[in-house]
Amino acid sequence: MKALVYHGPGQRSLDEHPDPVIQELGDAIVRITHTTICGTDLHILKGDVPTCTPGRVLGHEGVGVVEAVGSGVAGFKPGDHVLISCITSCARCDYCRRGMYSHCETGGWILGNVIDGTQAQYVRIPHADTSLYHIPAGAAEDALVMLSDILPTGFECGVLNGRVAPGGSVAIVGAGPIGLAALLTAQFYSPAQLIMIDLDANRLEVAKRFGATHVIQSSAGNVAEAVRSLTGGKGADTVIEAVGVPATFELCQDLVAPGGVIANVGVHGVKVDLHLERLWSHNVTITTRLVDTVTTPMLLKTVVSGKLTPASLITHRFRLDEIDQAYETFGHAAQTHALKVLIEP
Amino acid sequence: MKALVYHGPGQRSLDEHPDPVIQELGDAIVRITHTTICGTDLHILKGDVPTCTPGRVLGHEGVGVVEAVGSGVAGFKPGDHVLISCITSCARCDYCRRGMYSHCETGGWILGNVIDGTQAQYVRIPHADTSLYHIPAGAAEDALVMLSDILPTGFECGVLNGRVAPGGSVAIVGAGPIGLAALLTAQFYSPAQLIMIDLDANRLEVAKRFGATHVIQSSAGNVAEAVRSLTGGKGADTVIEAVGVPATFELCQDLVAPGGVIANVGVHGVKVDLHLERLWSHNVTITTRLVDTVTTPMLLKTVVSGKLTPASLITHRFRLDEIDQAYETFGHAAQTHALKVLIEP
Amino acid sequence: MKALVYHGPGQRSLDEHPDPVIQELGDAIVRITHTTICGTDLHILKGDVPTCTPGRVLGHEGVGVVEAVGSGVAGFKPGDHVLISCITSCARCDYCRRGMYSHCETGGWILGNVIDGTQAQYVRIPHADTSLYHIPAGAAEDALVMLSDILPTGFECGVLNGRVAPGGSVAIVGAGPIGLAALLTAQFYSPAQLIMIDLDANRLEVAKRFGATHVIQSSAGNVAEAVRSLTGGKGADTVIEAVGVPATFELCQDLVAPGGVIANVGVHGVKVDLHLERLWSHNVTITTRLVDTVTTPMLLKTVVSGKLTPASLITHRFRLDEIDQAYETFGHAAQTHALKVLIEP
Amino acid sequence: MKALVYHGPGQRSLDEHPDPVIQELGDAIVRITHTTICGTDLHILKGDVPTCTPGRVLGHEGVGVVEAVGSGVAGFKPGDHVLISCITSCARCDYCRRGMYSHCETGGWILGNVIDGTQAQYVRIPHADTSLYHIPAGAAEDALVMLSDILPTGFECGVLNGRVAPGGSVAIVGAGPIGLAALLTAQFYSPAQLIMIDLDANRLEVAKRFGATHVIQSSAGNVAEAVRSLTGGKGADTVIEAVGVPATFELCQDLVAPGGVIANVGVHGVKVDLHLERLWSHNVTITTRLVDTVTTPMLLKTVVSGKLTPASLITHRFRLDEIDQAYETFGHAAQTHALKVLIEP
Repeated sequence: MKALVYHGPGQRSLDEHPDPVIQELGDAIVRITHTTICGTDLHILKGDVPTCTPGRVLGHEGVGVVEAVGSGVAGFKPGDHVLISCITSCARCDYCRRGMYSHCETGGWILGNVIDGTQAQYVRIPHADTSLYHIPAGAAEDALVMLSDILPTGFECGVLNGRVAPGGSVAIVGAGPIGLAALLTAQFYSPAQLIMIDLDANRLEVAKRFGATHVIQSSAGNVAEAVRSLTGGKGADTVIEAVGVPATFELCQDLVAPGGVIANVGVHGVKVDLHLERLWSHNVTITTRLVDTVTTPMLLKTVVSGKLTPASLITHRFRLDEIDQAYETFGHAAQTHALKVLIEP
Repeated sequence: MKALVYHGPGQRSLDEHPDPVIQELGDAIVRITHTTICGTDLHILKGDVPTCTPGRVLGHEGVGVVEAVGSGVAGFKPGDHVLISCITSCARCDYCRRGMYSHCETGGWILGNVIDGTQAQYVRIPHADTSLYHIPAGAAEDALVMLSDILPTGFECGVLNGRVAPGGSVAIVGAGPIGLAALLTAQFYSPAQLIMIDLDANRLEVAKRFGATHVIQSSAGNVAEAVRSLTGGKGADTVIEAVGVPATFELCQDLVAPGGVIANVGVHGVKVDLHLERLWSHNVTITTRLVDTVTTPMLLKTVVSGKLTPASLITHRFRLDEIDQAYETFGHAAQTHALKVLIEP
Repeated sequence: MKALVYHGPGQRSLDEHPDPVIQELGDAIVRITHTTICGTDLHILKGDVPTCTPGRVLGHEGVGVVEAVGSGVAGFKPGDHVLISCITSCARCDYCRRGMYSHCETGGWILGNVIDGTQAQYVRIPHADTSLYHIPAGAAEDALVMLSDILPTGFECGVLNGRVAPGGSVAIVGAGPIGLAALLTAQFYSPAQLIMIDLDANRLEVAKRFGATHVIQSSAGNVAEAVRSLTGGKGADTVIEAVGVPATFELCQDLVAPGGVIANVGVHGVKVDLHLERLWSHNVTITTRLVDTVTTPMLLKTVVSGKLTPASLITHRFRLDEIDQAYETFGHAAQTHALKVLIEP
Repeated sequence: MKALVYHGPGQRSLDEHPDPVIQELGDAIVRITHTTICGTDLHILKGDVPTCTPGRVLGHEGVGVVEAVGSGVAGFKPGDHVLISCITSCARCDYCRRGMYSHCETGGWILGNVIDGTQAQYVRIPHADTSLYHIPAGAAEDALVMLSDILPTGFECGVLNGRVAPGGSVAIVGAGPIGLAALLTAQFYSPAQLIMIDLDANRLEVAKRFGATHVIQSSAGNVAEAVRSLTGGKGADTVIEAVGVPATFELCQDLVAPGGVIANVGVHGVKVDLHLERLWSHNVTITTRLVDTVTTPMLLKTVVSGKLTPASLITHRFRLDEIDQAYETFGHAAQTHALKVLIEP
């Protein structure tokens, strides 16, 4: 089959690669119909993810059709149209039973990391019964690839951890795809204010279209002052960090109201300063989370009922043999205005 | 009256001071029968609390007898025996209605800080109806002074924020009075493990008597390894920071299990490092809180029912005219083995 | 002043009545600018509410302008435009501190019940600081009278108690004003299905306009079967009882999914059957609640931010001297298609 | 093998029965070392459980040793000592993922009901990976049979649903084994009052030994008055129904405080009266639940840490060939003072 293979920092190529085969009773083989590229794939290509070694097929997002299943798979059969979760869950270990699929003892984020991934014609999915989801009747299949990772990430790590609530104020630092995913799903809870903060004017335009009530271009003056002015001097009840660098985490600490939450979504490469000398008495909560995809069944219902339109995140479409171009487009989002790029093998 | 007055960094004296008088409709004047000294009083005396200016009567803990009430006070009358909360709450502002009395717009921590406090024969209590509590029949009045601050602090900031739960594992860094208050109240929730960590062998002995299931002397080798070994390699579900310096907060980050909580109780003077480069994917929660004393009614019930024995924290007793000696004893706890010192005007 | 006075079962008249005066430190006198009629007023007139005795001015909903305040009132002054909560809260008793204002030891539902109410030119509001709310700048004042009772009732007793959640299914039995208030506020949480059930085709038409995803006319065949068919055979996650008779509560028990909630909002006059012989193993929750109006500040924010449009509930407008006609219109809603009638003294 | 077989209402015998064999990939065969009798077994023998048909081996509680496993079982191997959950959970269906194992689409309560059970030398356990638990090192194996059903039932259906909390008041109606299981596990949360109510003086004696703070013999006068007198006139925050007849559910409605919970644990055979004409405005919650055994891992930790001593529930011990005598002893508990009887095949 054709597959995008990682060959070490800075190196990837669309190779001929052996087809995956059933290895465990619980495995399924899925023919990929749609996949996409994640910011994490770019991190891998920078060499930032040591668990991902050369020779690995990249990609952890996808929808497709089941080709074959192991004898232990009860819920799926060849021909079933499925959504692939970026997180593999055994459903049996302590973590899985507590809803922390991201820390599954024999799963977690393994696709396109420690086992071959979805930027290929076929992929092997371990623990298929609890890591695949049936595509609901009537759902647009291509857009559902947004439910593999980015929408549950924005929702679980940002919105749920951030305790977004009706009438509340939300500030999201970073209007990239993940910040926009948080913006879209925050609206499930009808906050009164949804303030998007970014350097990029184009992304802020998109944010407005996606439902932001206010946008702040962070280059232009004092963001903290602007947020305080919008929130009666108190700061935001929920602050979502969707960038992953010390400066944005620093900013979040200036934006959060007493009693509020900083929900970290960004992938950080270095430590940050935490101003406990000020925050120790502010009754704030800081959360971190690798997405568990425990809300995927619920998100599928919101898609079917029209409360969430994942297609809005897709800006470009490519064939698998154009994946180089897809990476270029996604990797230069400031120029291309790419959010998510859809790839169809 | 006699009162301990702050005269600037390093300076305090037991002075003759004007008796407090009713200033607002909601005020009460309370004759103090028991008070105590808090670590925060030592901070003030070091000059670390700029809101507290020379001339201020110190102290924010106490029990006593109501002498007089303003015309707006409905729930208390002269002669009532009362517990004074360290936090003054109007019960009307947005923060108070959300249970965040610590951020009350006309209250919060003001006693012995921005208004005169309780290390005196008399004190004025604003918003008396919602900042005083009736002493329940049959409760030992002297020991209840432990409910002014230290026990709600350990409970709210440490135990509740830390989500201590039956069967769970708890590590408390710091076995001083506040860490011990957390230890005592953590037992309300029957955790399977209560691990106390401190440098001081004497304090760890006390911790054992107070219900710690394990103690770790932090000078002796690797604390994180010891905690992991006690918790099946995972770390503790709840980690309570009860010291307030960067090194102990750093340690907490090594002790917390995936999915766990670091509940900060310590008063920090400088910023700390937060290792988001590691923790971003660990599904952890970090909380801060100035005590709200919102659980005081509940804590009073646990005292009456014998589930909590506040007297166990009291190691020394002094008269008000011995308050210098009380400060010396409390300030040199390593030598005196003082936990809390009771002062009786 | 002019006021609508209850003179015993079936008897009311617009009388000349003494103006209210300040009686307690915490009282405010409010000049009513808008009031309305509640289903409970009809109950009183039927003689169903023994606490309400002849001579009482009716009404517990209103907005107006503060005329005078007692010396203990800190947050309001003459001239302030205010929303009157149907629930009076002292903010100090155990119940108030737990957010159960409805059970306030010196308040609760007293307006138009045990003290004179709002269907008058003036009303006395006890505990004014914690029972009145400032009208936010820019809010349409007349429509805010919907926040005195009906919207917090639908929201707190129906939506919050019913744990309405994104992607969930909600069945509301009864499309009268209170059921519609639940329907409007349920949408704060983006459920996938909002199924309205009523006998009245007109009300179901209104429900569709208000956001119902499905409507079921209960006369036409098997409601339970219809709901099961819409919910994959399971029943609804949330069932809201908004009528108050045994037959509708019986129906709710047929509609609820395993793990679901029946949130009772209806005012019941007689006992009902509870089918524990079937439900004991269904993991269901049944809740009751007299509105606490603890969410009023939050609801005001949703109005200001445009997430909630209370004006949509108002179908008719009258002057105070037309209040007889207003009662006739509201009391014959099936014919008049009245939802809420606005009365302007 | 020897097994106790149900032969229709009133009829059971210890028969020679075919040994169970692996039928599905996920099955395990367990050699029973300890089992017990549940009140539900008596219900079956009365003919009250139509799903249980003649020829069925009874029993849904047990500990034992794994003899064989299907090829899909990953977590257990022959020789492992295991606790058998009374609830079989696939861990994959919607209900299981929401923690409602009792409603598992291919499991739930099936043992000794629709498939052969544990009152035998061997039993087949479907979905073994998620329906068995490893016996922790150092735990007394025999007493752990109390964790198959009765302790999680008392804890989940009574204590957790009842929201038992530090300082709260709890009334438990029924001091049989299940009420006592609730009493034991309620103490995890340190309520101030634990009031046991029963007709049987002996059971109330046991309740005192097990930690009840007050006992009320329900024959002697007014129970509701006694509970109100103990709770400052308000009633109990948590009321646990552990009998299952209309009269006791009626009593619970008289005992619950405003804002409180009635947690039903009893198995009811007929409908009950619910006094909504009174309770509609009392802000109460009523819960039902078939045990999910989702807390079994946590309960095992409380046993290992000594917070829970399941052996205290065991009053009699029998060999499997004495099971007739065991049934007689358990079935006449008023005379024999039996709580739980241990049976060792």
